[in-house]
Amino acid sequence: MKKIILTKLTMLVLLVSPSIAQQKESVGKSPWGPDDEIGTLNMMSDASKLSVLSQIVSGEVFDLSVDYFVGMPSFSALGDPGYQYWLTHTPHGTVVDNPNGLGKAMNEKVSYTGDAISMYTHMGTHIDALNHFGLNGKIWNGFTPDQYLGDKGWQKTGAETIPPIIARGVLIDIASYKGYENIKDNYRINSDDLKGAIKQQGIELKNGDVVLIRTGQAQFYEDATTYFHHFPGINMDAVKWLIEEQGVMLLGADNLSFETFPPESEDNWVPVHTYLLAEKGVMFIEQMNLEELSKAEIYEFAFIAASLKLKGASGSPMRPLAIPINSN
Amino acid sequence: MKKIILTKLTMLVLLVSPSIAQQKESVGKSPWGPDDEIGTLNMMSDASKLSVLSQIVSGEVFDLSVDYFVGMPSFSALGDPGYQYWLTHTPHGTVVDNPNGLGKAMNEKVSYTGDAISMYTHMGTHIDALNHFGLNGKIWNGFTPDQYLGDKGWQKTGAETIPPIIARGVLIDIASYKGYENIKDNYRINSDDLKGAIKQQGIELKNGDVVLIRTGQAQFYEDATTYFHHFPGINMDAVKWLIEEQGVMLLGADNLSFETFPPESEDNWVPVHTYLLAEKGVMFIEQMNLEELSKAEIYEFAFIAASLKLKGASGSPMRPLAIPINSN
Amino acid sequence: MKKIILTKLTMLVLLVSPSIAQQKESVGKSPWGPDDEIGTLNMMSDASKLSVLSQIVSGEVFDLSVDYFVGMPSFSALGDPGYQYWLTHTPHGTVVDNPNGLGKAMNEKVSYTGDAISMYTHMGTHIDALNHFGLNGKIWNGFTPDQYLGDKGWQKTGAETIPPIIARGVLIDIASYKGYENIKDNYRINSDDLKGAIKQQGIELKNGDVVLIRTGQAQFYEDATTYFHHFPGINMDAVKWLIEEQGVMLLGADNLSFETFPPESEDNWVPVHTYLLAEKGVMFIEQMNLEELSKAEIYEFAFIAASLKLKGASGSPMRPLAIPINSN
Amino acid sequence: MKKIILTKLTMLVLLVSPSIAQQKESVGKSPWGPDDEIGTLNMMSDASKLSVLSQIVSGEVFDLSVDYFVGMPSFSALGDPGYQYWLTHTPHGTVVDNPNGLGKAMNEKVSYTGDAISMYTHMGTHIDALNHFGLNGKIWNGFTPDQYLGDKGWQKTGAETIPPIIARGVLIDIASYKGYENIKDNYRINSDDLKGAIKQQGIELKNGDVVLIRTGQAQFYEDATTYFHHFPGINMDAVKWLIEEQGVMLLGADNLSFETFPPESEDNWVPVHTYLLAEKGVMFIEQMNLEELSKAEIYEFAFIAASLKLKGASGSPMRPLAIPINSN
Repeated sequence: MKKIILTKLTMLVLLVSPSIAQQKESVGKSPWGPDDEIGTLNMMSDASKLSVLSQIVSGEVFDLSVDYFVGMPSFSALGDPGYQYWLTHTPHGTVVDNPNGLGKAMNEKVSYTGDAISMYTHMGTHIDALNHFGLNGKIWNGFTPDQYLGDKGWQKTGAETIPPIIARGVLIDIASYKGYENIKDNYRINSDDLKGAIKQQGIELKNGDVVLIRTGQAQFYEDATTYFHHFPGINMDAVKWLIEEQGVMLLGADNLSFETFPPESEDNWVPVHTYLLAEKGVMFIEQMNLEELSKAEIYEFAFIAASLKLKGASGSPMRPLAIPINSN
Repeated sequence: MKKIILTKLTMLVLLVSPSIAQQKESVGKSPWGPDDEIGTLNMMSDASKLSVLSQIVSGEVFDLSVDYFVGMPSFSALGDPGYQYWLTHTPHGTVVDNPNGLGKAMNEKVSYTGDAISMYTHMGTHIDALNHFGLNGKIWNGFTPDQYLGDKGWQKTGAETIPPIIARGVLIDIASYKGYENIKDNYRINSDDLKGAIKQQGIELKNGDVVLIRTGQAQFYEDATTYFHHFPGINMDAVKWLIEEQGVMLLGADNLSFETFPPESEDNWVPVHTYLLAEKGVMFIEQMNLEELSKAEIYEFAFIAASLKLKGASGSPMRPLAIPINSN
Repeated sequence: MKKIILTKLTMLVLLVSPSIAQQKESVGKSPWGPDDEIGTLNMMSDASKLSVLSQIVSGEVFDLSVDYFVGMPSFSALGDPGYQYWLTHTPHGTVVDNPNGLGKAMNEKVSYTGDAISMYTHMGTHIDALNHFGLNGKIWNGFTPDQYLGDKGWQKTGAETIPPIIARGVLIDIASYKGYENIKDNYRINSDDLKGAIKQQGIELKNGDVVLIRTGQAQFYEDATTYFHHFPGINMDAVKWLIEEQGVMLLGADNLSFETFPPESEDNWVPVHTYLLAEKGVMFIEQMNLEELSKAEIYEFAFIAASLKLKGASGSPMRPLAIPINSN
Repeated sequence: MKKIILTKLTMLVLLVSPSIAQQKESVGKSPWGPDDEIGTLNMMSDASKLSVLSQIVSGEVFDLSVDYFVGMPSFSALGDPGYQYWLTHTPHGTVVDNPNGLGKAMNEKVSYTGDAISMYTHMGTHIDALNHFGLNGKIWNGFTPDQYLGDKGWQKTGAETIPPIIARGVLIDIASYKGYENIKDNYRINSDDLKGAIKQQGIELKNGDVVLIRTGQAQFYEDATTYFHHFPGINMDAVKWLIEEQGVMLLGADNLSFETFPPESEDNWVPVHTYLLAEKGVMFIEQMNLEELSKAEIYEFAFIAASLKLKGASGSPMRPLAIPINSN
């Protein structure tokens, strides 16, 4: 299997245009101090949260998460486990097994269903923690595996440190702006695309925003093969513009891995990941469902999300909500 | 092991006071129609959601969820799996294994961490789906395993059907009202306790509320043995008053299993569960963290929560939020 | 995903030659009595075992099992989990985590490695238990799910009932006899192929034998895609001849699923499985490694194997051994 | 939880008699060369295997393995997962789910059962690989995590390197010799006990033997609590005598962890493990079932066992067999 992947990824790297001059990449030092574990999420304050909540003008709640089911899309090329679901107790099974020792009559009366799951932490709608990708053996803010990576994950920047997120959210609907047909084959969304879509949508970005970029890929979520096939993604130019010029706090998209493949860089197979997580301390959400928001043409909303507090983890599932606001 | 459990649970049943006359229990037929899968969550509307969101007076967000970690409390008496977390990729491991085939230099530069989890669906802060407990081989609204229970869970009332929840929330702080010392040994919280606490707190219940009952047990969450030891719970009288007289929509508590053991009923080892889920179509949240809310003496709030959409599942983790409101 | 499988398997069924007249298939009643759970493995006796052990003429032991590793071949089309391996403790991780509470000096001195696995029971070299496939809701000897299938597997014919197997083993090397190139595309090995190979090898089958059929597929075991691609398999004619005319006790092969796809039958997607397991009470071993045995041209041997006693399971891994005998 | 373990294990260490003078412990250098990964299992040769097989005098095969079942004993104090078993397909579930897309008639006819497992690698009857415990950051023969420990286990001495084991086996029945009542509370079996039992049994040890020590603990295997409670174990004096004076190749016992707790050493919580695995290159088998062998008073036998080839793993399940020999 390694051989196959090698072929596949080596090919990707060979396909890379060498025209992009490589800047020296290294992990960022947090402006919020040496103990900081959450990067740009520090931009939130009680005041900023109340501000956006106060702008809510509707009780229509948009659910931005996909379902979790056996057979759902899963990045398994590097050996990670897919989603598994199994029943641990069923009404009939408890009658046969009598696991509680209370006998047939009790178990026929009280019909018990229990179940369990297992999954890679980067499946379904989820947020990437800052430790997911580092550079040269360090993660965001200089934390090292030597000191902080045990067998149960990172003691710094683990998913349990990610706070509930309440902020102004903005949808940039690239699939509608450019037409899905024009971006479906590994297209790299750049800053001009973002600017054009924003202009057409008649909105503005603000410091501290949560920016969600729709590629349209989520319409194929039920069919993993199609969902993975040549999906478009966000390029370095786009994220640099969002972070460095627009002061965005958090990003999200509806495709597998935010950026696309092959990578833009010769010596970094996930340059957008390392730029955001390791250099800039910016988390992002992957595999969102932005279809309903797009259909309703809702571009500004209160974004409310709270990922599971998985101690030490490099990612965590979340089910984000969008509630329309009037930001004028 | 079965023998041990048998002894333990048989003992529980034998300890039960036989004074409670048993009414005939059977699954409820939904007032929302034969296709209904979400029971009392139908009480929410866009208007009800907007109403509570409009009453928000603070940007202080209370996180009502516990952490997920190896060794966390887990009900394993009936064989269910505990929480597991494991690393699938580490910065050093990818250098040794070269799983992407891109070689040492690449893997030394791009420091990759990935991980996976497995868990029983009723661990940590989670909501019980209506299929979790039925009566006499049926679940809420009469759905049967024969027709709807496959190997990947229930095709009716699975966790993916649970909508995002936004409603007025109320904390009833029984641990403070009665003193934790007085309830810690399997105390059964009754309707008088609820009424007394509500009165002391100076609040009122309203139709459609989310009612969270604090037993104080969550202060021991880090130590599974203590957390499980003789925890107090809510009794039948209390839940009947909440549902039938107060019109509550959703319940929650901070202990293992909402109700306590031994059960109040002779022929039902989880009478509160079957009453709420199977008879009344009322879901509830277990293993919450209500400590901060209690310390801040916040008794009324916008309750916002969205459980993971685990297809077919009998329960699902969620990280609920509480934001203070002014309900006058 | 269901749609994809549907397409794939429906296609298979449509491709099936309808020329084979379907006999009515039903589960067999064991000649070893109504309590029998092991079918033809009853053919073994202390005398039969001693007999074959007494014929051993060499200490060269052939290992007939493949390795278990992340990325190994796994039948996932119906949602079953692949093989997962993860470290639960490492020398460095225990120093960081201090899981035993004994401190840094102790954990630096005592370098601890622990790990865990998860897998579908039909992966790697494994034996199919008689409950793996039944007919019309019953399994071998008429046992029913209603009475015997709980949440922890079958209370009858589970893998824990499979005894250690010691018997005369025979290799029928079809890949060598016919040439792998000639069988690689879904070829169905028939009884004439078996007879021809046996004759060329200069051996005879005997009542109670373990017969291993080499298709040559195991040479691709390290590359799951190739291993699964159009693999050849054994047809109904071949197994009927082996069981009904030769009185063979146990079968084995080196391919994914013993039989090949598309199935020979229109209304049975695994006719060889149900014939052997459900009708005849004959178990078989899949995904063996028969390469070394073939290279050494060892055709008769003491076959020694003992599968893990997984309670209630439908299959179990085993690592069978072959030791050359002189059977004259 | 860490606090609990800390208390428990610290207590153990404090209970340790400090009278044993500590020798400096360090990993052994293999006499079989710098590439050696299997330690004393190198003592086997084709000749040694044929020799023992030739002495077999019976076809009675003793099964030395316990069953695997949900609730079986599992060392979970350091967070390792217990044994899980779950059904992935059932006859009824496939009718409801139609996972293969072939429809109701097909799935009602072909009654499919599939299942999956997960487990710590040190559960049930299993062998410890040489990498399970090292000293000062190295394992047997000086291999280091830095060079050889990836995310999928050790690239040296992993369980896949353990050969099939065929050798003379000897049972030393300490439970019978001393009486179980006299050893049940954490008794440490020493070399005098071994010598006394051997003498009483009328046997001799030979170079290259597999020595199995019966403590009697396996009679409680079905009840995990009792099985774990104050089990006796083998002490340093005993293993040193077996390895250094008797030239034994492989060891085994029927208790949780071969040695007992508290440890004999102040600065090593598993001194017998590190002595055998890291210093001497001797593997051992834990959690065996030696009850039948004891009842039959079979003390000399052909020992035949083949652990699953779990790549990189620190341990592996096996189902060893014992067949009586006449060694005179």
